[in-house]
Amino acid sequence: MGRLESLGEQLAGVYAVCPPPIPAPVTVGVFAGDHGVHAQGVSPWPQEVTVQMVANVAAGGAVVSVLARQVGATVVVCDVGVAGEVPEGLGVRDRRIAPGTADFSDGPAMSVDECELALAVGIEVAASSIDAGARLLVTGDLGIGNTTASAAVIAAVTGRPAADVTGPGAGSDAEMVAHKADVIGRALARHTPAGGWGTDRDSVVALLAAVGGFEHAALAGFMLGAAARRTPVLLDGVIACSAALVAQALCPSVTDYLIAGHRSSEPGATVALDRLGLEPVLDLGLRLGEGSGAVLAVPLVQAAARMLAEVATFDSAGVSGRVDEG
Amino acid sequence: MGRLESLGEQLAGVYAVCPPPIPAPVTVGVFAGDHGVHAQGVSPWPQEVTVQMVANVAAGGAVVSVLARQVGATVVVCDVGVAGEVPEGLGVRDRRIAPGTADFSDGPAMSVDECELALAVGIEVAASSIDAGARLLVTGDLGIGNTTASAAVIAAVTGRPAADVTGPGAGSDAEMVAHKADVIGRALARHTPAGGWGTDRDSVVALLAAVGGFEHAALAGFMLGAAARRTPVLLDGVIACSAALVAQALCPSVTDYLIAGHRSSEPGATVALDRLGLEPVLDLGLRLGEGSGAVLAVPLVQAAARMLAEVATFDSAGVSGRVDEG
Repeated sequence: MGRLESLGEQLAGVYAVCPPPIPAPVTVGVFAGDHGVHAQGVSPWPQEVTVQMVANVAAGGAVVSVLARQVGATVVVCDVGVAGEVPEGLGVRDRRIAPGTADFSDGPAMSVDECELALAVGIEVAASSIDAGARLLVTGDLGIGNTTASAAVIAAVTGRPAADVTGPGAGSDAEMVAHKADVIGRALARHTPAGGWGTDRDSVVALLAAVGGFEHAALAGFMLGAAARRTPVLLDGVIACSAALVAQALCPSVTDYLIAGHRSSEPGATVALDRLGLEPVLDLGLRLGEGSGAVLAVPLVQAAARMLAEVATFDSAGVSGRVDEG
Repeated sequence: MGRLESLGEQLAGVYAVCPPPIPAPVTVGVFAGDHGVHAQGVSPWPQEVTVQMVANVAAGGAVVSVLARQVGATVVVCDVGVAGEVPEGLGVRDRRIAPGTADFSDGPAMSVDECELALAVGIEVAASSIDAGARLLVTGDLGIGNTTASAAVIAAVTGRPAADVTGPGAGSDAEMVAHKADVIGRALARHTPAGGWGTDRDSVVALLAAVGGFEHAALAGFMLGAAARRTPVLLDGVIACSAALVAQALCPSVTDYLIAGHRSSEPGATVALDRLGLEPVLDLGLRLGEGSGAVLAVPLVQAAARMLAEVATFDSAGVSGRVDEG
């Protein structure tokens, strides 16, 4: 059964029981934040789109909302650093640390304290989702400018040049992509310590604070919080993959709990997946974000567990053995 | 949304309405048959496994049964040419034309009349499933030796050498694969008319009768019957792909109605998909058959339709336009 077999094995390991339970109920944690680097002209979209998309997801009209309904997943939208005013009454969890990060081309995106707070928000959302019954968490994200922060984190963690890991995100043209890579490259030259980034906890948090986003930190916390509770996490696209690199740097064994939902068409996603050692379940040429690609992979992850639990063995079904085995 | 967008467009075309309806209910047509060429030692499994697998699928214990339950699909098992005795009371539809095909290394696998009957069975199962409410059909197949017949059909239709399109099927070793390709190559040398296979209806049916299987013919009919009723067909692996080549040869526009569920790891599947012009939804390294890979793709096909029907447009959600569009 190819990839489904390895997925089933991974789930048995994560839950520490074989056959593993069906990974349900499912909660999608959609973390939203804005990015100071947006001021550098790295996105064709105005920043107010972040808060509009938050409202659209919370109201159930976004792609991730539709796909989550199809697979029976709960969507938790968490404002961890949106710049605009989030409408009340839509159930958006208010964990806003600041109205967007600072412009990392000018200084660190977050203070270390802010970054720690955002990590803690992710841990809290993972824990509360699991307390509410979730057995599979899915990453989601919203934030104009967040592919720029993701590319910066991926370049910083892997040491790859910014141009190798920077893509068009939500529709930048070639000129804007080149400019985006240039902004990232100059910021990394400014922020990277003389001897390169260290691998101890403080250095990793400093890297994340320097060029990451609130949602990146929250996602890394979400992954670590899930792993601590033996709960698998399905990753969406390049934002989640960059956050996973940070989670891996903080705790290498977290990758045992991660499943790459799909291969985003952003170039940084493939660089990050290689470093994480994760083989994506789907490859559909998606670049939407929100958590949409990961939610599409939910039925496949559930199928992998179901196969181990429900398929009759050849013995139990009375099927004859191979001729060459007698 | 990458591949999901093109799938949504295809569904709108098939159903001739946009947004397309959600492709549900779903019926999996599992066509079972045995193969005379099994006598040539082309499979490590005894032929009696076919009837045992028919019973297992009908009893709900096989992989396709488990996956169909997960996606809410109905499974129709149809004996179109099994050699062994199918147990009664399991709801297997008895449309047996003969107890297995004849050995195509010795003469034609089927008579033209038998082949026409098998085509008609597939058309009938498609029609009865659609009459019962199905809006998406999925191909399934069972039959020890059926990857040999599939490779023979693919080689005959595409003109590729047998060795290029022959794979291990259900676990043949390298030596058996080489033998399998040799058996196919010699059979094609024997059956191919002096000027090559013609493309008129009689020639296509003669090709199918010469080296195909009852389930291949039934599957080709199933596809044509579905297309005639504007119903999409999700293809499983190499058996379905080889049958689709026959359906395409009989009626080229049938491919508008076909969706390749996954890329089987059998080499002939990729050759057939290329000729069909179909891009598979999944690529999970599966080689199981039964319809399992296609059933895994059902939620993705449904998601593609759901996106067009339910996602709010940026206008309706009050999301701002791109900066560069004013």
